[in-house]
Amino acid sequence: MEHEMDALHRPGAATGEETLDPTDWAVLGALSHRIVDDAIGFLRDVRERPVWRDMPAEVRTFFDTALPRSPAPLGEVYRQVTENVMSYPMGNIHPRFWSWYMGSSNFTGALADFLAAIQGSNLGGGNHAAALLDAQVVNWLKEMVGFPASASGTLVSGGSMANLIGLTVARNVKAGVDVREHGVAAIDKPLRFYASDQVHSCHRKALEELGLGNRALRRIPSDAGFRMDVAALAAAIAQDRAAGFLPACIIANAGTVNTGAIDDLSAIGDLAAEEDIWFHVDGCIGALIAIAPENALRVDGIGRADSLALDPHKWLHAPFEVGCALIRDPSAHHAAFAVTSEYLEATSRGLAAAAWLHEYGLQTTRGFRALKVWMALKEHGAEKFGRLIDQNIAQARYLTTLIEAEPLLELAAPTTINIVCFRYRAKGVEAEALKAINTEIMLRLQEEGTAAISDTTVHGEHCLRVAITNHRTHRDDLFLLVEETVRLGNEIAGS
Amino acid sequence: MEHEMDALHRPGAATGEETLDPTDWAVLGALSHRIVDDAIGFLRDVRERPVWRDMPAEVRTFFDTALPRSPAPLGEVYRQVTENVMSYPMGNIHPRFWSWYMGSSNFTGALADFLAAIQGSNLGGGNHAAALLDAQVVNWLKEMVGFPASASGTLVSGGSMANLIGLTVARNVKAGVDVREHGVAAIDKPLRFYASDQVHSCHRKALEELGLGNRALRRIPSDAGFRMDVAALAAAIAQDRAAGFLPACIIANAGTVNTGAIDDLSAIGDLAAEEDIWFHVDGCIGALIAIAPENALRVDGIGRADSLALDPHKWLHAPFEVGCALIRDPSAHHAAFAVTSEYLEATSRGLAAAAWLHEYGLQTTRGFRALKVWMALKEHGAEKFGRLIDQNIAQARYLTTLIEAEPLLELAAPTTINIVCFRYRAKGVEAEALKAINTEIMLRLQEEGTAAISDTTVHGEHCLRVAITNHRTHRDDLFLLVEETVRLGNEIAGS
Ligand SMILES: Cc1ncc(COP(=O)(O)O)c(C=O)c1O
Ligand SMILES: Cc1ncc(COP(=O)(O)O)c(C=O)c1O
Repeated sequence: MEHEMDALHRPGAATGEETLDPTDWAVLGALSHRIVDDAIGFLRDVRERPVWRDMPAEVRTFFDTALPRSPAPLGEVYRQVTENVMSYPMGNIHPRFWSWYMGSSNFTGALADFLAAIQGSNLGGGNHAAALLDAQVVNWLKEMVGFPASASGTLVSGGSMANLIGLTVARNVKAGVDVREHGVAAIDKPLRFYASDQVHSCHRKALEELGLGNRALRRIPSDAGFRMDVAALAAAIAQDRAAGFLPACIIANAGTVNTGAIDDLSAIGDLAAEEDIWFHVDGCIGALIAIAPENALRVDGIGRADSLALDPHKWLHAPFEVGCALIRDPSAHHAAFAVTSEYLEATSRGLAAAAWLHEYGLQTTRGFRALKVWMALKEHGAEKFGRLIDQNIAQARYLTTLIEAEPLLELAAPTTINIVCFRYRAKGVEAEALKAINTEIMLRLQEEGTAAISDTTVHGEHCLRVAITNHRTHRDDLFLLVEETVRLGNEIAGS
Repeated sequence: MEHEMDALHRPGAATGEETLDPTDWAVLGALSHRIVDDAIGFLRDVRERPVWRDMPAEVRTFFDTALPRSPAPLGEVYRQVTENVMSYPMGNIHPRFWSWYMGSSNFTGALADFLAAIQGSNLGGGNHAAALLDAQVVNWLKEMVGFPASASGTLVSGGSMANLIGLTVARNVKAGVDVREHGVAAIDKPLRFYASDQVHSCHRKALEELGLGNRALRRIPSDAGFRMDVAALAAAIAQDRAAGFLPACIIANAGTVNTGAIDDLSAIGDLAAEEDIWFHVDGCIGALIAIAPENALRVDGIGRADSLALDPHKWLHAPFEVGCALIRDPSAHHAAFAVTSEYLEATSRGLAAAAWLHEYGLQTTRGFRALKVWMALKEHGAEKFGRLIDQNIAQARYLTTLIEAEPLLELAAPTTINIVCFRYRAKGVEAEALKAINTEIMLRLQEEGTAAISDTTVHGEHCLRVAITNHRTHRDDLFLLVEETVRLGNEIAGS
């Protein structure tokens, strides 16, 4: 046989084989240095550029071309990226971006994403360093929000997935049947989940995905402060029990997306405990306030949750994507997602001598998203992130004060944390016309490159909305926003 | 008011505000150059290093430390990463890594992940360049697998999520009720999904997540070639109809994870059409064979699927994570996931003047994962990726020939594409002992740093498994694997 195998072995045959690796690493090195230098310039000078600008037609059509069949030099590809991609960003790394709700990234996180891709490890699990680091980041997040060390957790693509993970465990624990095996139709009493009318849309999508349906999510009215009305919650639970439903899970908001309101976590936690209901907290916006010395009290009680969703790509400014689900009961967490398949059996030694991280969520392959959180926390320390959270909340308070001092503006909701809802007001103008004026203000602020803010509807009324999750924002930026809003409002209302 | 606001504005107050940006960009530039140079060395010399090595105790304990509260210089953090993280990788970027099933990353993809994080755009949607590029990559993937341009698609975290997206649309379309609103319990006839007994575990998890339950997934026996037995499938469908179930979805494999078998897509597609059943293809492993000139015929019919999961982080070697779900009917896709929330309304101009990409899946925030696929496709051209796929399949055939020529080894399954299942055989040894010998071979190959292969069980029999999704593998590497397997087998069996 030696002979036979040797005949099949043509030494040097390797030379005919292709690879994605470059033929000249030195050329790649020079280009990479240029890319890194450009990136530094890109972030260093971000303040000098407009927050946002629209793409010209030729950029739009650039993205219409068919699949490239033949190669192009990487330098040329990079030139295309610079001209067509880097020049027209969403804008959320800019100091005056306060739209929707997201973090503003950071250079260290970008280096970490680069290193993660270079190492290329798969965080589905296995016995290697990245897997240990992934678990460490989960442990650090538990520490930050006051979860016990015995709790379980997993890093996921973002807050929506983190909530879905938590609600899946809630469903499975409360179903009263083996819902993984038999499905939702086998559940005896239909499950009911509860959240305030301010709850993020990802919860509706989660209930739909879980086969429970949107109807299974009861929206409890929010009070004038946009917090869940706990008396109404208790009444709804009693009513549902009487009607033959099983109250299964309460979703409390630690920071609503519309106004930043924080539900009364202690009261809701107490009620959940009394009623034997799963207590889930959506802390995508606010959970990390737990590390902010001046504001931590606002999320008191968050560590009591049965499950908690939080979002390092928001207030830790990790580049997208990284969210985290924490589950108090590690065996309930594992029981919701573990499946052993033949090709993934663990061993006592070697590469597979470790827990499978994919047994705690819906992904099999998992990227090394932990590294960007880890490196930034090591570099800056958690205390600085706490101060930055306090800083954003103080900035929102400052903006609120400016609005209160300006007769042409009015608050549309109380400011709790880092979200400010307000509107330009023109005397004797109907709601519809007012909405049109405010929308036009928002659009012009964007189009002029001054600031990116968004709008929303709170308790039926349209308003502008500024969400300050931004480590580059200065108070001056907010002052400018108010000045420009008033100027544009006057211009638009006057015309 | 001007006066009042001015009183609140302290010019220069900005100086007191903290940021994550560095104080000295030049220092950061120098460190970044070093990181890039190290990364180039890391990939250039990967062949010289062991595939894998175990971590010493001090590295393990390094990851046990509590949350860092205070800052550390980035250079010091990077040193820790080099010593503790980069030195102990999973190994899947190595030319002799063939465990489980995953790609081997590439430098351009890592640069793209860096640039994506620097730009920081959120691919939840919006009117900016990254969003157009994201859509373009979906279009290119449609083109590659022969999906019509009118089809819909979305980039997700990987193959598991891509399958979940496809199966969600299938459930919702076939439910016969508004399942998003009313849940699975409102479905009249219980839905049944079908797949071969070789189907990936993520499908089971998907059915569980969807509230249909594992029982709703009927496993159809596979034939000697590990392909779904289509006659048995037809019989199961008929039986289920008679028993009052609604046959809703057939999941065909274009490449099974155990052996790489490709189900008869045309026959199954025909059956699905006749029976009015949703036709989903799990093409995580094999869909991209459609671009490989020598093997494309093997996945003939894949473009007919109602939904298709594919996985650029496998055979396009994109760094983790990127999977893709394609759905033939764009309105069914949108109808499964769209929710309009107050704070995310689209506008006719400005930043929100665009479709929301989060309305096609479960994430709200989405990262810019498209860029790594885009840059690598532009650089190398799709044709080269096709040749690399052919190359891996030819390498698997070469390994198969080596095994057939070696009396001490035997194939455990037919080789179809890039997965080879085999075992060391020792005369007169029982199944249990044989499993022990083969497992020990696998572990020693890993521990000696020679090769990372895994094991599995096919039709009840344990075997070693080599999955060649690797653009760095040479035939020489496979020759070495066979030599070492025989040497180790003899050593272990002899002792
Ligand atoms: C309260 C809340 N929950 C969940 C989410 C979803 O988070 P992600 O966008 O990371 O999926 C958001 C997003 O802004 C949010 O504000
Ligand atoms: C056939 C098949 N489907 C789905 C998956 C899951 O893909 P991912 O790991 O990207 O989630 C795999 C993973 O290997 C697979 O082989």
